[in-house]
Amino acid sequence: MKTFDFSTDIPILGKAKITSPLNRHTKSGEPVKRFVSDKSRIIVDVQIDHLNPNHAEILSFEQAGPREKIYFDPSKLKCIIATCGGLCPGLNDIIRSIVLELHYIYNVKLIYGIKHGLQGFIPDFEHEVIDLNPGSVYGIQDTGGSILGSSRGAQDIGMIVDCLERMNAGILFMVGGDGTLMAAKKIAEEIENRNLKISIIGIPKTIDNDIYLVSRSFGFDTAVDVATLAIKGAHNEAVAYPNGIGLIKLMGRHSGFLAATAALAQQDANFVLIPEVDICLYGKKGFLQAIENRILHRKHAVIIVAEGAGQNLFDDQEKKEFDPSGNVVFHDIGLFLKEKISQWFMAKNIPISLKYIDPSYIIRSLPANANDSVFCGFLGRDAVHAGMAGKTKLLISFWNNHYVHVPMDASTGKRKKMDPHGRLWQSVLEATGQDAFFTD
Amino acid sequence: MKTFDFSTDIPILGKAKITSPLNRHTKSGEPVKRFVSDKSRIIVDVQIDHLNPNHAEILSFEQAGPREKIYFDPSKLKCIIATCGGLCPGLNDIIRSIVLELHYIYNVKLIYGIKHGLQGFIPDFEHEVIDLNPGSVYGIQDTGGSILGSSRGAQDIGMIVDCLERMNAGILFMVGGDGTLMAAKKIAEEIENRNLKISIIGIPKTIDNDIYLVSRSFGFDTAVDVATLAIKGAHNEAVAYPNGIGLIKLMGRHSGFLAATAALAQQDANFVLIPEVDICLYGKKGFLQAIENRILHRKHAVIIVAEGAGQNLFDDQEKKEFDPSGNVVFHDIGLFLKEKISQWFMAKNIPISLKYIDPSYIIRSLPANANDSVFCGFLGRDAVHAGMAGKTKLLISFWNNHYVHVPMDASTGKRKKMDPHGRLWQSVLEATGQDAFFTD
Amino acid sequence: MKTFDFSTDIPILGKAKITSPLNRHTKSGEPVKRFVSDKSRIIVDVQIDHLNPNHAEILSFEQAGPREKIYFDPSKLKCIIATCGGLCPGLNDIIRSIVLELHYIYNVKLIYGIKHGLQGFIPDFEHEVIDLNPGSVYGIQDTGGSILGSSRGAQDIGMIVDCLERMNAGILFMVGGDGTLMAAKKIAEEIENRNLKISIIGIPKTIDNDIYLVSRSFGFDTAVDVATLAIKGAHNEAVAYPNGIGLIKLMGRHSGFLAATAALAQQDANFVLIPEVDICLYGKKGFLQAIENRILHRKHAVIIVAEGAGQNLFDDQEKKEFDPSGNVVFHDIGLFLKEKISQWFMAKNIPISLKYIDPSYIIRSLPANANDSVFCGFLGRDAVHAGMAGKTKLLISFWNNHYVHVPMDASTGKRKKMDPHGRLWQSVLEATGQDAFFTD
Amino acid sequence: MKTFDFSTDIPILGKAKITSPLNRHTKSGEPVKRFVSDKSRIIVDVQIDHLNPNHAEILSFEQAGPREKIYFDPSKLKCIIATCGGLCPGLNDIIRSIVLELHYIYNVKLIYGIKHGLQGFIPDFEHEVIDLNPGSVYGIQDTGGSILGSSRGAQDIGMIVDCLERMNAGILFMVGGDGTLMAAKKIAEEIENRNLKISIIGIPKTIDNDIYLVSRSFGFDTAVDVATLAIKGAHNEAVAYPNGIGLIKLMGRHSGFLAATAALAQQDANFVLIPEVDICLYGKKGFLQAIENRILHRKHAVIIVAEGAGQNLFDDQEKKEFDPSGNVVFHDIGLFLKEKISQWFMAKNIPISLKYIDPSYIIRSLPANANDSVFCGFLGRDAVHAGMAGKTKLLISFWNNHYVHVPMDASTGKRKKMDPHGRLWQSVLEATGQDAFFTD
Repeated sequence: MKTFDFSTDIPILGKAKITSPLNRHTKSGEPVKRFVSDKSRIIVDVQIDHLNPNHAEILSFEQAGPREKIYFDPSKLKCIIATCGGLCPGLNDIIRSIVLELHYIYNVKLIYGIKHGLQGFIPDFEHEVIDLNPGSVYGIQDTGGSILGSSRGAQDIGMIVDCLERMNAGILFMVGGDGTLMAAKKIAEEIENRNLKISIIGIPKTIDNDIYLVSRSFGFDTAVDVATLAIKGAHNEAVAYPNGIGLIKLMGRHSGFLAATAALAQQDANFVLIPEVDICLYGKKGFLQAIENRILHRKHAVIIVAEGAGQNLFDDQEKKEFDPSGNVVFHDIGLFLKEKISQWFMAKNIPISLKYIDPSYIIRSLPANANDSVFCGFLGRDAVHAGMAGKTKLLISFWNNHYVHVPMDASTGKRKKMDPHGRLWQSVLEATGQDAFFTD
Repeated sequence: MKTFDFSTDIPILGKAKITSPLNRHTKSGEPVKRFVSDKSRIIVDVQIDHLNPNHAEILSFEQAGPREKIYFDPSKLKCIIATCGGLCPGLNDIIRSIVLELHYIYNVKLIYGIKHGLQGFIPDFEHEVIDLNPGSVYGIQDTGGSILGSSRGAQDIGMIVDCLERMNAGILFMVGGDGTLMAAKKIAEEIENRNLKISIIGIPKTIDNDIYLVSRSFGFDTAVDVATLAIKGAHNEAVAYPNGIGLIKLMGRHSGFLAATAALAQQDANFVLIPEVDICLYGKKGFLQAIENRILHRKHAVIIVAEGAGQNLFDDQEKKEFDPSGNVVFHDIGLFLKEKISQWFMAKNIPISLKYIDPSYIIRSLPANANDSVFCGFLGRDAVHAGMAGKTKLLISFWNNHYVHVPMDASTGKRKKMDPHGRLWQSVLEATGQDAFFTD
Repeated sequence: MKTFDFSTDIPILGKAKITSPLNRHTKSGEPVKRFVSDKSRIIVDVQIDHLNPNHAEILSFEQAGPREKIYFDPSKLKCIIATCGGLCPGLNDIIRSIVLELHYIYNVKLIYGIKHGLQGFIPDFEHEVIDLNPGSVYGIQDTGGSILGSSRGAQDIGMIVDCLERMNAGILFMVGGDGTLMAAKKIAEEIENRNLKISIIGIPKTIDNDIYLVSRSFGFDTAVDVATLAIKGAHNEAVAYPNGIGLIKLMGRHSGFLAATAALAQQDANFVLIPEVDICLYGKKGFLQAIENRILHRKHAVIIVAEGAGQNLFDDQEKKEFDPSGNVVFHDIGLFLKEKISQWFMAKNIPISLKYIDPSYIIRSLPANANDSVFCGFLGRDAVHAGMAGKTKLLISFWNNHYVHVPMDASTGKRKKMDPHGRLWQSVLEATGQDAFFTD
Repeated sequence: MKTFDFSTDIPILGKAKITSPLNRHTKSGEPVKRFVSDKSRIIVDVQIDHLNPNHAEILSFEQAGPREKIYFDPSKLKCIIATCGGLCPGLNDIIRSIVLELHYIYNVKLIYGIKHGLQGFIPDFEHEVIDLNPGSVYGIQDTGGSILGSSRGAQDIGMIVDCLERMNAGILFMVGGDGTLMAAKKIAEEIENRNLKISIIGIPKTIDNDIYLVSRSFGFDTAVDVATLAIKGAHNEAVAYPNGIGLIKLMGRHSGFLAATAALAQQDANFVLIPEVDICLYGKKGFLQAIENRILHRKHAVIIVAEGAGQNLFDDQEKKEFDPSGNVVFHDIGLFLKEKISQWFMAKNIPISLKYIDPSYIIRSLPANANDSVFCGFLGRDAVHAGMAGKTKLLISFWNNHYVHVPMDASTGKRKKMDPHGRLWQSVLEATGQDAFFTD
């Protein structure tokens, strides 16, 4: 977190000269001081020993929020929303929040939804465009998924910008993960190349909570909520049977945030495996021996494994055995561990009762819980504020309890990971009682 | 349903001569008419054209409930509870209900729980016995699983009865599925052979809701509740992606009740596959073509498959391909369909987005919802009433809205199935719009 | 239940001559035997000692379900739906079920919703009419309330029938409680007087579950679910504080079904008060003394009171004190008991901590749970089947596990009550341990 | 937030000299860098323009977490836990977290729970002391309330310290609100006076989320979750009836955080009233006229009122009318508004349908949701770390995403309030569309 430079200014399309319609007046007639100045910035690192006493060099983000002057004329502005990648609780909340803010607060009436993510920009797919207004977003927050649908995979950047030009778009709100934000960045660059005045505002989406410079991503809290159910289930199964083992696979391709947080929510897990810490299966201090010790001692065990954990196990010797085509992508650590654990105990002639739970798609497609709904509301409103002010090529992020603008250049292409020496992971080790590392 | 004969009397250990402690008095001093007579019987088939006008031949069950006279002396009675087989929402409610009823209403203070199902009777397993009282069952209804644990598999009947003798047991409450009830029946027979006075009361447990002569089994309603979540998830995933397909596998080894009922709860499914109706995959009127038609027409599809559906697909040619050892047991229809659907569309060069959901263990290990809790309370109380009255070798069942006694001889070894011409399945066909049969 | 005569035929508008579009064919080409015959009837009383051996006199209901011949021509039929009275979980499920069944299965495309209940028929209120189709009912089952809205109070029957005539309606589906069904009956009579061919199908709605000849009403199960939460809350508050008392008021103006069932779901309540059993507050065996005994002995108490309980307390002497205007309607038993309990313990100088919970409107406005959704689906479909067959002036009811047609003449104006000697109430007495009656 | 001085050191009982048992080793044998140094501090205000460039003067909190050296010898330490004041979701999670951390991580085996809050220290109440260990806290996180119970009101500080002395206590963990923390501070002072070595660690509890220098308090997120249900209910009721009004009273005696946050979660509220902004009922720009405008224009309205809102309305003229005894404490703004709104519309002859919802005790007595469970786990563990290190007279707080130590001297006696010019309240104004102020 030391090397990036995001204290640069956020790109803007032009000078914001129009008075914001958010101006309100107090009882006494004075305007309410509700606007956020572009100079208001949030410190990145709040640990005081990390602070450089030289004020000019303290890293900080531009604070999000409504600006007193806006760039776009609401009566002539056309806005576009697209949701991309995997489903995540809260997509509909964000769509609704953007639409209500544009419509009621900024008086923007032309709002359109692109269907099925980036595909919707490409004529060949023939996906319709959806008119968005308070009526069309009524009640959608109670439903999971996205009313705009989604798709995975890249599309031609030039054709996307062609579409924006044809539609005469002013602001494009893109909700998506790593790949989407990378595409958003390229779109913003192509727009700059063509000298267009289109703002690209990204809202980071990842159920893994692993986007760089984004301390919390929407949907994560809902995911923890439901993952907890799965852990309770695994625990109940494990304790009910002699030598019962509950094995839950949770999302987390590159980071173990969900596995770790869910483990702390329930404190019923005995082992948590995450991508940030390699696993050693065999040997006296290996993972399988640790399970055996637990089973012999306590008669049951609950294991949470992040989907990206243990990829080191698929190197070399395992590779041949499990994936002849050499494609690392398809290694399923959940099913792999299920098999390895079963084999281990079978070889030891210890009968076990192993139950495997993979709640992935139940979690992804739920509506957001209240906490995520509040969060999505802020993300949506701040995305609108940023776009209306003519800012572009930025993410709406949450950092140190404040909503901030993160330049796309600073975030995309990197990933947030758990620090194996940090409080979160250390707390998991305390809660589970597991060894910090499984070695051979 | 015409040929069995359960109008025979329920076996009893001896004449019930002791006045029940449930006697209460009304305001005016008269006793409340709260007892159920042994002569009170519930008609099995309530459709009037099925009734034989000859009164003597109408099939009926003995009604459950408290008897005015009881067989056991509460002050000397020792009761035992065991929960067997797979977990099911409501096990703790039933344990709690039995314990509270025995303790507070009948004043029976010696109640013990056998750990890990039938294993707990066998000395070699060294499972402890648990003292059960209002304190030890406090709050357990809020937790899934069973505080007594469970196990699968048969144990020696003679050794089980030895254990009951050694423990000086009066009533054994056995909560379990088909296999457990079969064991219960044999235990009752061995007890009769040994001329012991031990009542065996069965409480049928099956999340598949497929026990013969039992219209509803506990936990089923909770299972439908949660299965609905999975279907919502599958639906949200399916509609979000171009050519999205959501495939949910639900419990139901021999009967499609859960798949059918959950489909009706949400009315988002387009195809439901159950064990009672064979599946034809290929051909113009086959299942895969039907999915293709739906995808081409509506762009998404939601499929629910009961785990026991489509076993006909694993005959002959498939057998070799999928299970060389010839073991029919391990055919996983969910993963099988996932592969077949993927292959079909790949061959047609139609890109799809298929999501597979298997919520099994999340469902099984949940606490009961309110409806199941009420139901479990009645089952537990009526099991106690039956046992206290000296009845034995019976199941507590629910039939035509009444709690009844079903002789174990009448129920065990048979299975309840959905009638493909009945209202439930026909309603599923209406709700999904699917063809009644997939043919080639 | 002995005196009514509902074995009379259900009124019909004319002979059903049109072949139903529900005809399907089996694999082998034979039609599926899916239709219900008008002669298929369900026995009312399933206790065998209540049966009269003379077959002709057994009371029975006509079974609901699709008929082979229908009366209305789907291509020319216009259907109307109205929801009336208080909100109840499941209203949107029923609307959706009726619309989907009419649209997809019977191919009826003209379906309209009347806004705000009976008001919507009266021109002066100027409520719009809503076009109902699969699109307009998409996803509504996930939302509480009714998309058609509702209203309370009577409207002019003649003007309602005028509206139906003007709209050229064929079937009117009325979802509502006692008053609504009484209005529906009068509407049907006025239609008969005018010699119109309009079917009036009632779907009984009551969160109190107290409609005569209807064993279960939709929304009740959801209400129990949520009432359980309130009882848990009251229990947690009561046990947490020295001499803690939790007092929950639940719906139930004339019947205690909800209070009783919720008490059984949680088994945490110590006192349940229902309209069917008078309360005596004072005296050695009175209610207040019973609470005191419990508080002294166990240090906490949980009380559930149905809103219609204890109306006897407001007679005579109380009347003057509490309601000078003599208006019985506004006696709030919950607040009344709260005050009386507080006074009692204050007079005894015993400090208590009393918490009062009234979850009424939270319950009424929830979406249906899965169980109620399934149930609403059947009610809606069977309402459509009945109307399409030209039947009229009937309720769709659930009785002995079957859906049946109940003539409005047989049900309206009466009320289902709990039998203080029946299993339900006796089970509550067992679960709470309270006295059967509080006397002075 | 500028004037307090909490950069003073946290009081300590003595030098921590004992090596913490949390020492773990990595794969390579090096110790894991898991400890937090006393010098690690978290900046209070992260807005960069609020920062004083002079490093020495930046306000900061001491960071919470495990210390490398501890003060107490685990083998001889006795710890005590008490929960005080109103119930709040998460109490049992905190108890469990403290017990598990002490028992498993620090190897402290003597842990006792004081029953019914401060009362439990006073011999006259005769409340038992509870032995706390992993067994006695098993599964308690699934239940609302507190297994230790609670009570309200002050007790004699000297007698409390007498009790601690008699019990030979080393650490007292006090979970409670403003009054409790004030008592905790006095207890710590009395302990200092007596020269005892007892650490007093406070864990702030307030469902209103209004404790000074505590950005988030446990249970608040769960409260928002459930408050959302009530708002949905009010919304459904309001839209269903002509001129429907839903009025929800939520907790918040001095601060509107819960009302505001819940309003943002659902975005269905049209008016939110909080203690921080006075209400003017009458006049052209008054609250009642605003409701009337909304009703005439949109036909329904949803109002959320915090329990402490509108206390200005009870001054002077109102006082006489509503509370002759002059006791401001008992003004119930919910029932007051219900009456005033009804009167207003009655006077205008506009029929309305007003539903009043008060979910207070349902919310307070729930188990914590997953998010609060995780949070409570950290609070409990960090409370243990602080106590073991010999620190005292501090609160465990959460600030800028870090857990910190706040000296009791800095927090108690003050209150956190919403800034009417801040983002949270301004977002509520945007979401509701209501005027910033109601004036006459």
